[in-house]
Amino acid sequence: MAVNKKLNFPKRKKKKSRQQNKLGKAPGTISYMGDKELSDSIIYSTTYNSDGFETAEFTNLEHFFKEERADKISWVNVVGITDEPFIEKIGKHFNLNPLVLEDIVNTEQRPKIDEYEDYIFGVFRMLYISEEDEIVGEHIAIVLHENTVLVFQEVKADVFNGLRERITGKLGRIRTRGADYLFFALLDAMVDNYFLAIENLNNRIENLEEEVYQNPEPIVAKNIQLLKKEVLKIRRWIYPVKELISRLIDTENKLITKDTKLFLRDVLDHTMEINESLQIYREMSMSLMEMYMSNMSNKMNEVMKVLTIMASIFIPLTFIAGIYGMNFDHMPELHYKYGYYVVWAVMIILFIGMMFYFKKKKWL
Amino acid sequence: MAVNKKLNFPKRKKKKSRQQNKLGKAPGTISYMGDKELSDSIIYSTTYNSDGFETAEFTNLEHFFKEERADKISWVNVVGITDEPFIEKIGKHFNLNPLVLEDIVNTEQRPKIDEYEDYIFGVFRMLYISEEDEIVGEHIAIVLHENTVLVFQEVKADVFNGLRERITGKLGRIRTRGADYLFFALLDAMVDNYFLAIENLNNRIENLEEEVYQNPEPIVAKNIQLLKKEVLKIRRWIYPVKELISRLIDTENKLITKDTKLFLRDVLDHTMEINESLQIYREMSMSLMEMYMSNMSNKMNEVMKVLTIMASIFIPLTFIAGIYGMNFDHMPELHYKYGYYVVWAVMIILFIGMMFYFKKKKWL
Amino acid sequence: MAVNKKLNFPKRKKKKSRQQNKLGKAPGTISYMGDKELSDSIIYSTTYNSDGFETAEFTNLEHFFKEERADKISWVNVVGITDEPFIEKIGKHFNLNPLVLEDIVNTEQRPKIDEYEDYIFGVFRMLYISEEDEIVGEHIAIVLHENTVLVFQEVKADVFNGLRERITGKLGRIRTRGADYLFFALLDAMVDNYFLAIENLNNRIENLEEEVYQNPEPIVAKNIQLLKKEVLKIRRWIYPVKELISRLIDTENKLITKDTKLFLRDVLDHTMEINESLQIYREMSMSLMEMYMSNMSNKMNEVMKVLTIMASIFIPLTFIAGIYGMNFDHMPELHYKYGYYVVWAVMIILFIGMMFYFKKKKWL
Amino acid sequence: MAVNKKLNFPKRKKKKSRQQNKLGKAPGTISYMGDKELSDSIIYSTTYNSDGFETAEFTNLEHFFKEERADKISWVNVVGITDEPFIEKIGKHFNLNPLVLEDIVNTEQRPKIDEYEDYIFGVFRMLYISEEDEIVGEHIAIVLHENTVLVFQEVKADVFNGLRERITGKLGRIRTRGADYLFFALLDAMVDNYFLAIENLNNRIENLEEEVYQNPEPIVAKNIQLLKKEVLKIRRWIYPVKELISRLIDTENKLITKDTKLFLRDVLDHTMEINESLQIYREMSMSLMEMYMSNMSNKMNEVMKVLTIMASIFIPLTFIAGIYGMNFDHMPELHYKYGYYVVWAVMIILFIGMMFYFKKKKWL
Amino acid sequence: MAVNKKLNFPKRKKKKSRQQNKLGKAPGTISYMGDKELSDSIIYSTTYNSDGFETAEFTNLEHFFKEERADKISWVNVVGITDEPFIEKIGKHFNLNPLVLEDIVNTEQRPKIDEYEDYIFGVFRMLYISEEDEIVGEHIAIVLHENTVLVFQEVKADVFNGLRERITGKLGRIRTRGADYLFFALLDAMVDNYFLAIENLNNRIENLEEEVYQNPEPIVAKNIQLLKKEVLKIRRWIYPVKELISRLIDTENKLITKDTKLFLRDVLDHTMEINESLQIYREMSMSLMEMYMSNMSNKMNEVMKVLTIMASIFIPLTFIAGIYGMNFDHMPELHYKYGYYVVWAVMIILFIGMMFYFKKKKWL
Repeated sequence: MAVNKKLNFPKRKKKKSRQQNKLGKAPGTISYMGDKELSDSIIYSTTYNSDGFETAEFTNLEHFFKEERADKISWVNVVGITDEPFIEKIGKHFNLNPLVLEDIVNTEQRPKIDEYEDYIFGVFRMLYISEEDEIVGEHIAIVLHENTVLVFQEVKADVFNGLRERITGKLGRIRTRGADYLFFALLDAMVDNYFLAIENLNNRIENLEEEVYQNPEPIVAKNIQLLKKEVLKIRRWIYPVKELISRLIDTENKLITKDTKLFLRDVLDHTMEINESLQIYREMSMSLMEMYMSNMSNKMNEVMKVLTIMASIFIPLTFIAGIYGMNFDHMPELHYKYGYYVVWAVMIILFIGMMFYFKKKKWL
Repeated sequence: MAVNKKLNFPKRKKKKSRQQNKLGKAPGTISYMGDKELSDSIIYSTTYNSDGFETAEFTNLEHFFKEERADKISWVNVVGITDEPFIEKIGKHFNLNPLVLEDIVNTEQRPKIDEYEDYIFGVFRMLYISEEDEIVGEHIAIVLHENTVLVFQEVKADVFNGLRERITGKLGRIRTRGADYLFFALLDAMVDNYFLAIENLNNRIENLEEEVYQNPEPIVAKNIQLLKKEVLKIRRWIYPVKELISRLIDTENKLITKDTKLFLRDVLDHTMEINESLQIYREMSMSLMEMYMSNMSNKMNEVMKVLTIMASIFIPLTFIAGIYGMNFDHMPELHYKYGYYVVWAVMIILFIGMMFYFKKKKWL
Repeated sequence: MAVNKKLNFPKRKKKKSRQQNKLGKAPGTISYMGDKELSDSIIYSTTYNSDGFETAEFTNLEHFFKEERADKISWVNVVGITDEPFIEKIGKHFNLNPLVLEDIVNTEQRPKIDEYEDYIFGVFRMLYISEEDEIVGEHIAIVLHENTVLVFQEVKADVFNGLRERITGKLGRIRTRGADYLFFALLDAMVDNYFLAIENLNNRIENLEEEVYQNPEPIVAKNIQLLKKEVLKIRRWIYPVKELISRLIDTENKLITKDTKLFLRDVLDHTMEINESLQIYREMSMSLMEMYMSNMSNKMNEVMKVLTIMASIFIPLTFIAGIYGMNFDHMPELHYKYGYYVVWAVMIILFIGMMFYFKKKKWL
Repeated sequence: MAVNKKLNFPKRKKKKSRQQNKLGKAPGTISYMGDKELSDSIIYSTTYNSDGFETAEFTNLEHFFKEERADKISWVNVVGITDEPFIEKIGKHFNLNPLVLEDIVNTEQRPKIDEYEDYIFGVFRMLYISEEDEIVGEHIAIVLHENTVLVFQEVKADVFNGLRERITGKLGRIRTRGADYLFFALLDAMVDNYFLAIENLNNRIENLEEEVYQNPEPIVAKNIQLLKKEVLKIRRWIYPVKELISRLIDTENKLITKDTKLFLRDVLDHTMEINESLQIYREMSMSLMEMYMSNMSNKMNEVMKVLTIMASIFIPLTFIAGIYGMNFDHMPELHYKYGYYVVWAVMIILFIGMMFYFKKKKWL
Repeated sequence: MAVNKKLNFPKRKKKKSRQQNKLGKAPGTISYMGDKELSDSIIYSTTYNSDGFETAEFTNLEHFFKEERADKISWVNVVGITDEPFIEKIGKHFNLNPLVLEDIVNTEQRPKIDEYEDYIFGVFRMLYISEEDEIVGEHIAIVLHENTVLVFQEVKADVFNGLRERITGKLGRIRTRGADYLFFALLDAMVDNYFLAIENLNNRIENLEEEVYQNPEPIVAKNIQLLKKEVLKIRRWIYPVKELISRLIDTENKLITKDTKLFLRDVLDHTMEINESLQIYREMSMSLMEMYMSNMSNKMNEVMKVLTIMASIFIPLTFIAGIYGMNFDHMPELHYKYGYYVVWAVMIILFIGMMFYFKKKKWL
């Protein structure tokens, strides 16, 4: 019976516990906490000004550090953060606080923006839709220096291709602006992709809605719960961003120009919209569960009605048949010529009466 | 059986995803995001001062720009926002920020009011009741300049006819006031129409309430859920307006005079009332669902009682009949002269006893 | 069957929609919005100072305006607000803003207190218990001038009789105080009556509680839902008052003396108590519904137990009887001398065993 | 049947309605509002300084007023507040505002602390556990003057005995401190007793928890609801205290020294802890109800399983017996030699098959 | 039957009520309130500066006080707080307020941080995972003096071993920093261990989730409720910490250097993450209960279907057999040659028809 099929839960692979890994270490200790395998880090560097742009790729840090970048805006994209000494050297070169480095390699870090004396540091979750149509959240860390934007990411997959094309494109209006605009553009690209995640959730809610009405199997209830969990998870990644950007707009840090703040206000607007959507999805998933329960109740009602109708009609009739199956010596009706037919007539009348009764009660 | 009829869900037409459309574009890129077909934009212009008024209609922007409007208040109504270059030219003429233009054509934009140096820009949802008695929400963008109010809307259908009549009417007291009063009057008309949406929701709640008590079919549960969703959707459109108007009252922008703020306070009051109503409707739709579930339970109880009564009465009686249907050689009762009648008597007494028992339990 | 009786809903008389009435009118347009029939307005005027008091009744505004009231405190009680030109004239005489007049005749107006340059304007809901023991909410508008308090009400029925007696009484300490004290005294009387409404709700909750435990019929569920709705409605009338009075205490308006603020603090205290009660009633009505559902479940359990016990006992016994009702040629038991008695013995033993089993399960 | 026993509700004695009592009276009118019978007030006075202490008992106010108390701290304990003129005289002697006196005799007064020019006035609920192990809440009013603390209570039963012993004890360190410390000590004693109430609630929750798991009778559901109500009631008494004490710590009133504020911070801490507990108890009582419902569902499931198993096994078997109970002339099986035994065999096989099926489904 | 097994609750050992213990004592009275047996206190002292470190163990306070500690940072670890005079002497030596001492020995004290003139005092719950994989919460009190950090704990078991190793390790960078850094490091170690508690909760939720889907027995519901209770309990211990650390960062107390505040900001971040997780776990445990109820409903549905199918098929067939078991003299069908076979045919057709009907309804 389909209803009863086992809802198997894939056994979670036990991730090496982040916490046990960290216990007892000094704060500012740089230790990678994700689940990727150890691999080399590569630096993709894009340097530009209004005149043009250059792109380069480094695996050797010494080469990268020697590069001249004065008077230009640099977007330094570090892919792979498992190699701790590598990260540490970059940190030293760009004069980053050890706490910042710790957060860069901590893939579980909650979204945050911290302002330091000569740079602004942010950690975010970059969301994109995988090919299996699932929402993937990648840890990303961004550092805004006066002329440089450092981006640290785990794998060579991100949501910034459009941005890269705008920099390397013909028009390249973005090349006339400062590093803070690049910083904003990264945030903007990230938040634009949050909308895709939101849309994905929306589609799933609509599909579940349809299923709840047409086919309320237990698997649907499970999927509703999974959706609720996913909304909670994504909310956790996205929710703090609103507050962070709002604070960034209010900051008096000279790294963010007034012009860029105008653009950030737009991003803020988007994050507010996204948070509202998440809130609504949470309420809708609760409604879905309610609807599921109501449909279950309804199905039960229907089952009970069938039982009640069958039993109420045939049990009394069987009783009558039972009466005239008794073996008493003296049962005058048995000897009436039309006794048998009278009994049939009584039974049919009873049957019709019952049917009317159930009809009146709207059970049929 | 009516209970079991399929609740068919109309398949949603897949809208071209707003998000995919937008990904990777620079902020400030003007790209229409609604679902209307491409069409020409028309400008309806109303110019007035205390002496009188003029109305005109333009499809050619050059003609419109040449028009003299000095010393008069202009209400410039742009209908149709799918033609991006058209909007861009207007934007250039009125010196609007590209971000503003982006929001004007973004039909999914959340309500907002942004203050710029020499204009105030607002996006809202205009609600009206369609002929099918459904609540329609149209995207609308308003820009308040010193002497001009620009209104951008998707289709030639709005809630401002009363306002137009007041301008072109005999008395025309409104003509003695500034552009900020016109801006307020537009907001006021919009918020007055929110009350109609609220009333529409109220009627639907009352209808559902009646149905829940009289005819708690599954379709009612579905309608309650649809209502909840609609309340959530409308709340999302209306809720931010309160905050926006409140901020407008507190602003020190010279475009809004103190007199107009007094009127805005009145609008604020209305938005607060509307938000309270929406909150109450949310709670009431939850109560409705609760009531529906309780009525379902009740019906189930009733079904079970019928079954229990029928079974409890006739199963024992059938058993008795079964006893005397046995074929043992030695069953003395079968040979008693009045055996058959005694059995009937016993059965009738049992039946009456049962009836009394169920009566006492108030199941009958 | 009592359980199934139709829960008839009285058809609501369709009130002329407030909103359609208002659409397209200029703000500050005075148009009555209640459901009372058109009638003349009457002015009841009470003028007093520490030396004594005078009362008068006017239907003609000219007579009223001519009256000398210098150096005295006036309580001007306007009963009947359907006559729009009448209200407009009073407004002109007392120099009231058109928006104030609009709110005075708008019987749906949410409670508010607005401070103008030389007067304070408030709208409230006056609650009293009707003779049918129902809570009635009447719209009331109060204007505090330096020496005059204007009170606008729909019908000649209010909660201020005690206050009138205090003014016209022997002692009349209230006559030694200013108009702001009268304003406070009106608020105080109103809020004291809110307690009666609260008490009425409390009684209804207690009655429902008793019914839920003793007689959980569907009508009780409906009444719980009605109560919830009423609590929501009254909350909407009372809730804003707390905030309003709190702001009144903090105001620097010279119309309210420091002494009166001390008294207002007392009123504030009462409104806080009332709001807490309403909050508690909301939670209690939710608990009631929960209890109702639990009692329904319980009744269902009981019904099911009766069915299960009857069926479990008699179906196996009937089966045994059926066995020996078969007509096989070779059924040795049928020919045993004590076969019949042995079967009876087996049946009785089975019956007793079953009874023990159900006893152990505590189903009996 | 135990399940069905009537849950009798003791009829509430109709208290004289506080509100009707108060309507129409001037604010500041002193009218007792509790339900105690009229009785004489007694004053217990404890006067002390670092040198020693004196206690006295007065029923005659004149004697009390004559007493010399200069340079000493006085704790004036007025027991019995039904005698309104008595209270009024005390009020006049200590120069108390009529509004204060009104609150002193209003036994329904919500907790509050009001600061007046030369005294601080507070109303609280004193909670203690009665001998029937129930939580009793007594109205108490405290006035802090420069050297005097007035305490008004309804009956001679309070939570201050420990405090009295500390004053009259050998060490008596408290005697070296001012009246504000005494005021604090009273609050502290009161809040310490709140913990007892909290503990009482905790015990009741734990008992209910045990009953929910072991014996989920309807009476348990009722007790859970009663508990919820009690938590709400007590929360109402205790909740405001946190805010009040916090304001007292922030006040600049010279009556409270900086040292005493340090102690008050400790009391504040306790009230926060108590409020957290109440919050948790609220959630736990909701969980209890949920658990009760789940256990009810579970019992129903079990009942249904018994019914289904019995019916599913014996109804088909009875059908088979019915077949061979038919009286057709031509039924070859009836004449087979082993027909009867074959039928038995078939029935037994069916029975065993059924048992296996239900075993597999884990219904047995 | 497994479903019905008794859910035994271990009888709680009645702890000596904290509150009765405390009633009537003066505030600042030091009385131990935990449930450990009386035992000697031991002081473990670690003294260090950038040059090196010393560790010592004292049971005699005089020896400890004599020790020279000038110019060094001291970590004074007091294990065992049952010996009240011992604690009092330490308090006197370090000049601690009696209220502080009271909180040190009050093992039920809510987390708090109080700033005094020359020290900062904090109480926390230290969480670790016991060997039975349960979350244990130990009371801990920390006092930060200029060069000394006092730590008071109940038993010799804590979460600071990593920290000790860092101090006594080769590198010992921590030895170059001040006492405030040590204070921070203690907080940091504590909060890092909160993550372990969080992870433990997470594992339990995941296990329960699996059980809910695969084996929804009543014991699962009970475990969900226990989990909810545990989340509430831990939330109460952890929740205030966020606020406390945030206030510590904002303080202007000279004991906390700007550098250390940077580190505290990191701890603050962690506490925010933990609080978010707890919030999510609360919602997830509610979802679990919902899912459990839905699975229960589902199982009930399935039971009812089996019953309905069996009864609906065999009751009518039994009726037919009953008909031809009647003993009327005139029943022509009985004498038809193929009567018996026709009846069988009818029965089989009915059976197949029923099966189709239930198949169509998807009940099979």
